[in-house]
Amino acid sequence: MRLSRRSNVDPFIVMDVMEAASQAEASGRHIIHMEVGQPGTAAPAGARAALAKAMEEGPLGYTVALGLPALRARIAHLYAERHGVKLDPARVIVTSGSSAGFLLAFTALFDAGERVALGAPGYPSYRQILRALSLEPVDIQTRVEDRYQPVAADLPGDIAGLIVASPANPSGTMLDRAAMTALIEACTARGAAFVSDEIYHGIEYERQAVSALEITDEAYVINSFSKYYSMTGWRVGWMVVPEAHVRTVERLAQNMFICPPHASQIAALAAMECGDELEANLNVYARNRAMMLERLPRAGFDRIAPPDGAFYVYADVSAITDDALGLARDILDKAGVSVTPGLDFDKVRGAQTLRFSYARSTSDIDEGLSRLEAYMRAAGHVS
Amino acid sequence: MRLSRRSNVDPFIVMDVMEAASQAEASGRHIIHMEVGQPGTAAPAGARAALAKAMEEGPLGYTVALGLPALRARIAHLYAERHGVKLDPARVIVTSGSSAGFLLAFTALFDAGERVALGAPGYPSYRQILRALSLEPVDIQTRVEDRYQPVAADLPGDIAGLIVASPANPSGTMLDRAAMTALIEACTARGAAFVSDEIYHGIEYERQAVSALEITDEAYVINSFSKYYSMTGWRVGWMVVPEAHVRTVERLAQNMFICPPHASQIAALAAMECGDELEANLNVYARNRAMMLERLPRAGFDRIAPPDGAFYVYADVSAITDDALGLARDILDKAGVSVTPGLDFDKVRGAQTLRFSYARSTSDIDEGLSRLEAYMRAAGHVS
Repeated sequence: MRLSRRSNVDPFIVMDVMEAASQAEASGRHIIHMEVGQPGTAAPAGARAALAKAMEEGPLGYTVALGLPALRARIAHLYAERHGVKLDPARVIVTSGSSAGFLLAFTALFDAGERVALGAPGYPSYRQILRALSLEPVDIQTRVEDRYQPVAADLPGDIAGLIVASPANPSGTMLDRAAMTALIEACTARGAAFVSDEIYHGIEYERQAVSALEITDEAYVINSFSKYYSMTGWRVGWMVVPEAHVRTVERLAQNMFICPPHASQIAALAAMECGDELEANLNVYARNRAMMLERLPRAGFDRIAPPDGAFYVYADVSAITDDALGLARDILDKAGVSVTPGLDFDKVRGAQTLRFSYARSTSDIDEGLSRLEAYMRAAGHVS
Repeated sequence: MRLSRRSNVDPFIVMDVMEAASQAEASGRHIIHMEVGQPGTAAPAGARAALAKAMEEGPLGYTVALGLPALRARIAHLYAERHGVKLDPARVIVTSGSSAGFLLAFTALFDAGERVALGAPGYPSYRQILRALSLEPVDIQTRVEDRYQPVAADLPGDIAGLIVASPANPSGTMLDRAAMTALIEACTARGAAFVSDEIYHGIEYERQAVSALEITDEAYVINSFSKYYSMTGWRVGWMVVPEAHVRTVERLAQNMFICPPHASQIAALAAMECGDELEANLNVYARNRAMMLERLPRAGFDRIAPPDGAFYVYADVSAITDDALGLARDILDKAGVSVTPGLDFDKVRGAQTLRFSYARSTSDIDEGLSRLEAYMRAAGHVS
């Protein structure tokens, strides 16, 4: 039976690592998971209680396509609280996770064959979703001195759009206001759309992340309840679009998704009032991050980007290997720590990088770092 | 800011009707909803109980992209139970509602610019999703004598695929085994993919619907927990694909959706063991249908397709009007019954058709039919 050309997206290398980790666990080994991109915590208790109550009160049928009005209003208010931005709730579109946000944004903005730029290293699904939609991803090789973020001078002239992430995955680095403004201006000059992935907002350590909405109304901003709100499996997020785009995105959303999961929307609305629990989660990430920054270099992973936010450290291991996948397999095999090789994030230089996640418990991170240090000593990479 | 050409999908006409119905209710009027495409019942009690329990037992993080293995296995077993088909669970892909199934199927099967056939009248989102993916929908005008279903002789030679639905929306008609076999053979002869929308399976009245899987393994079958399992807002469904396509669809699903909502998957698995409650819902639809078939003709709506399944009656009102939207507005205004004009389903002949849903309670349907009869008498359409 026929298959399309555009369905030929890249495999996730990390899936092989996760599968190997699962098999190791199935055989009785104890594995520390530093490969996962999600919190180990549940959705906030208040979110779960709200859903348990709503389930008994009546059917959870379709909501309107753009999401529960109360949730849209609460999200709009978040921008006043966090960014001092007054945002019309009509511009807020609740989505089935940021994944649906990307599908809606890319279909609303780009026609088949157009070129869309994105920084490498970066979240691999940007590239694959673009391909599945018959668009052409254009990788911009970023530099460590630019904090692994694209800069305006790197942007080709013929692009239809640019996707940035701040804090970024895998590097955890952020764009400051000047850097983001320069990128927005470069896009405007090219007639290109600016898409700002802000799904790690709220998970910041030394300064608050800048939202594109602080700078312009002419951008697509994508966010999610997955990370800060600890609700990955619930598949609920949001998007803010220019006022003139709301009706178009609404029609697309009606047809492509009908609505985001009703139960998840109820839980998400309640989660936004669970500040104490969410700040406690954040304190765990902060402790884990401090431990990582202190002890990863001691273990020989000393070429790392400054992780301003998110819960990742991206390490250049080119001094050790040009086979990061092999290194990750060996670390899993010998040290029982599962880490992500960089190939999914950067086709060019990813064979010389590893991503370490510190989203799990502090005791897991402590143990993982001890194992990594022992492994690197035994392998002769540190003395 | 730029917008793509492919984002220019048609508006949903029915949304205007629903908005007008909402406004009428807000002004204090009592409206009978015969426009809705969803059950008035909640997810089965057992489904809600399973989720309430799971929420307290641990985090509902990402599942694997293709869905919980237990759910995939249970769905595969459904084909043995209902259709006598032995199905490998590896071919079952859990999706974020049938909407995600269509997005995955169309990206896996078709490249930008290809032509995909579908019967008119039909579910409007097929056409809009195809457009959003830069594909060209090719409407096949069906005939009443063919039960509003496409026939092999109508298929153009240059199509890349055909989408059928049985039971269909808006007509409720089904394809029998011979008719479906002929369509599958016509697709095979053209090298076209056969996509079978089976989301109304289980809601059948006089005979069981045929699944494409009874006839061939070389088809995409799309189904959902929305209708028979009464879980519309939960956004969970499934797709069965040829064995050789599983890996491709898995990669697309990983990137485009990450996973279906975890909570909804847990509820769906439990819903499959709630047969008594689901059969009770079905008995309500059966009573409603009998009432509709008896009393709609008396109210002057006598040119109707035989509704083999689903919970709709599609009526040809060409003897009354060629402005079905105006008629629907007048019925809402004067009779307080919200019905769907056919324009969303059929661009050509939809101005002369109405869709009546009988998914709500029997007392609502009873009252709605009385109001429709009174309206049609007052308007002089019946004596």
